[in-house]
Amino acid sequence: MPISDSIHKPTLLLDETVVRRNIQRMAGKALAGRTRFRPHFKTHQSLEIAGWFRQAGVNQITVSSVDMAAYFAAGGWDDITIAFSVNPRQLAEIDSLASSIHLELLVESAEAVDLLDRGLRHRVDAWIKVDAGAGRTGLAWNKPEQVLKLAETLRQANHLRLKGLLTHAGNTYSAPDPQAAAGLFAVSAARMNRLRQSLLAAGFEDIQVSVGDTPGCSSTTDFATVNEIRPGNFVFYDAQQLKIGSCQPADLGVALACPLVALHPERGEAVVYGGAIHLSKDTLEWEGERVYGLIAEATADGWGSLIPSGVVARVSQEHGILRLPPAALAHLKLGDLLYVIPAHSCLTAQCLGRYLSLDGHWIEMMRA
Amino acid sequence: MPISDSIHKPTLLLDETVVRRNIQRMAGKALAGRTRFRPHFKTHQSLEIAGWFRQAGVNQITVSSVDMAAYFAAGGWDDITIAFSVNPRQLAEIDSLASSIHLELLVESAEAVDLLDRGLRHRVDAWIKVDAGAGRTGLAWNKPEQVLKLAETLRQANHLRLKGLLTHAGNTYSAPDPQAAAGLFAVSAARMNRLRQSLLAAGFEDIQVSVGDTPGCSSTTDFATVNEIRPGNFVFYDAQQLKIGSCQPADLGVALACPLVALHPERGEAVVYGGAIHLSKDTLEWEGERVYGLIAEATADGWGSLIPSGVVARVSQEHGILRLPPAALAHLKLGDLLYVIPAHSCLTAQCLGRYLSLDGHWIEMMRA
Repeated sequence: MPISDSIHKPTLLLDETVVRRNIQRMAGKALAGRTRFRPHFKTHQSLEIAGWFRQAGVNQITVSSVDMAAYFAAGGWDDITIAFSVNPRQLAEIDSLASSIHLELLVESAEAVDLLDRGLRHRVDAWIKVDAGAGRTGLAWNKPEQVLKLAETLRQANHLRLKGLLTHAGNTYSAPDPQAAAGLFAVSAARMNRLRQSLLAAGFEDIQVSVGDTPGCSSTTDFATVNEIRPGNFVFYDAQQLKIGSCQPADLGVALACPLVALHPERGEAVVYGGAIHLSKDTLEWEGERVYGLIAEATADGWGSLIPSGVVARVSQEHGILRLPPAALAHLKLGDLLYVIPAHSCLTAQCLGRYLSLDGHWIEMMRA
Repeated sequence: MPISDSIHKPTLLLDETVVRRNIQRMAGKALAGRTRFRPHFKTHQSLEIAGWFRQAGVNQITVSSVDMAAYFAAGGWDDITIAFSVNPRQLAEIDSLASSIHLELLVESAEAVDLLDRGLRHRVDAWIKVDAGAGRTGLAWNKPEQVLKLAETLRQANHLRLKGLLTHAGNTYSAPDPQAAAGLFAVSAARMNRLRQSLLAAGFEDIQVSVGDTPGCSSTTDFATVNEIRPGNFVFYDAQQLKIGSCQPADLGVALACPLVALHPERGEAVVYGGAIHLSKDTLEWEGERVYGLIAEATADGWGSLIPSGVVARVSQEHGILRLPPAALAHLKLGDLLYVIPAHSCLTAQCLGRYLSLDGHWIEMMRA
């Protein structure tokens, strides 16, 4: 039975061959670049897919929440970085995790260090979270005195050991091409190393640098100046990464299969069951407009090439309005599946909550 | 114990008093306007909240998916409209529902009528889905010949009975004020009635008109020309409805409690645990910029007034970047809860999957 026959509603299809190749490629790059590979598991959030990383030699991982750390710890992962500023309301859960696995946390204020040091009974490693230019959170890269002061506070703490400096250079997501992403990666790495020098000069020892974002890590091979990379999205990639050029169409690991429910050939549109609650409302700019995803051809056993000019033009709660060229619209009939390459695969995976492998088995993920 | 002490991570708080008042008000308006109230349950998706509607006299409901119809049918609701173009891949589930409850469906093509008529063994009522100007899907309001033709097709069907004409005037969401929303509502109703006249003139009998969108239904009291209203979002309202003026701050039924994890007073920002996977990435325009939500004051037992100029300026997967005035930032400390009024409460409810009532009990909703 073709996989499409088992799909009755919006379903996130996963191509295991592609996903395993993406994992292998990034693991190989890290190995060749002599940097530690600590992939971010927030994209897939699945113990089964985590096993594919294990087979590629991965033992250390990154997650984005305490709950996600607990999920992977329960599945046997015992070296985890929670790459999210400490939430003081989850100290008990953090301490419980620290009692059974090696845990690494992010801090960016003396207040957070103090809360942790008083709240934990078990030791953790701490990274100082640095804003290397992305402007989300962290201590500013160009204010070394603040970083030094926080490092000093950490030196006084009983339950925290300063491991180094960590950043997420999310500004690579606005890079127009892979060269620009690689350039931004290099700039972030250089800023982090300048900060490291300040710490070493002040007598701190063995200060590591951790960076990680998919556009940067996919577009560069020069990992010489960083100790660790933490990309996540590369496991699936998506339309946004395709636009940047950090992946090729053949690297797309997931697509949302959506049943066609209405045709509007007079305005060049098709309506699918598959909307904001499946794709999220994340967008990318594509050929001059904001779109919610791209459209791939249906094949006998999944999805194929991108349909030129095929986009998800609008979404409401359960509807996706697709714009397609006349030739693609002409042969469609109600109930056909259309395959959407999401703008942002992390959010789409989170929305769907599980994957259907092309071989027909369900791949479960963490549930909130 | 104050409710805030039980909150450790992003949590959707619900004020039952407000929600019941919103339900009562809309039910009262429909009664006074002598129109049938068939509220859309896609916003709350909860059997417990459905019970509050039952207490307000509601027996007929609208949902947006076959799964949602099955969830409410299992909970005792036996008169349901699935306000979504028929998905041919769920005919078996639809037929199963039609065997046990009164089911109403939307059709907008002869192809859909044919699929249903051949696929169903049980009778359903059918609404012709009309696009009265919103441009999402449905037959165009200004092409009565297409509507007449589809009505004729329905007359020949064995398992479908034409009930009338249905539209969702989603264009009211871009109304600048309640008067404009009421105006758009009136325009849609007039267009629907013109179509109804065409059908009656062609010999069709008892053609009903169903409309429904929260800005329109909240802003008008003139329901004389429609047989049924189907608003949904009014149960909670949100920042978007506040902006239109279809609700007041006191009508906001839910707020996302988010722990503070970092402070950046130098740039007027605070970072909370609470991002795109909680709020969705829906936005509204507020004071000249796109924002992901508004911020309300924390009170002893929940949330209070809106903080002037307090907005969710950016979100990433788990982070929300809030911009707050200096006075509001000054007294904050890590771990404090900040209350976000979401841009779009339907999507935030979907993301969170359950509600915490101000009295401390969890209100469950349908899980995918």
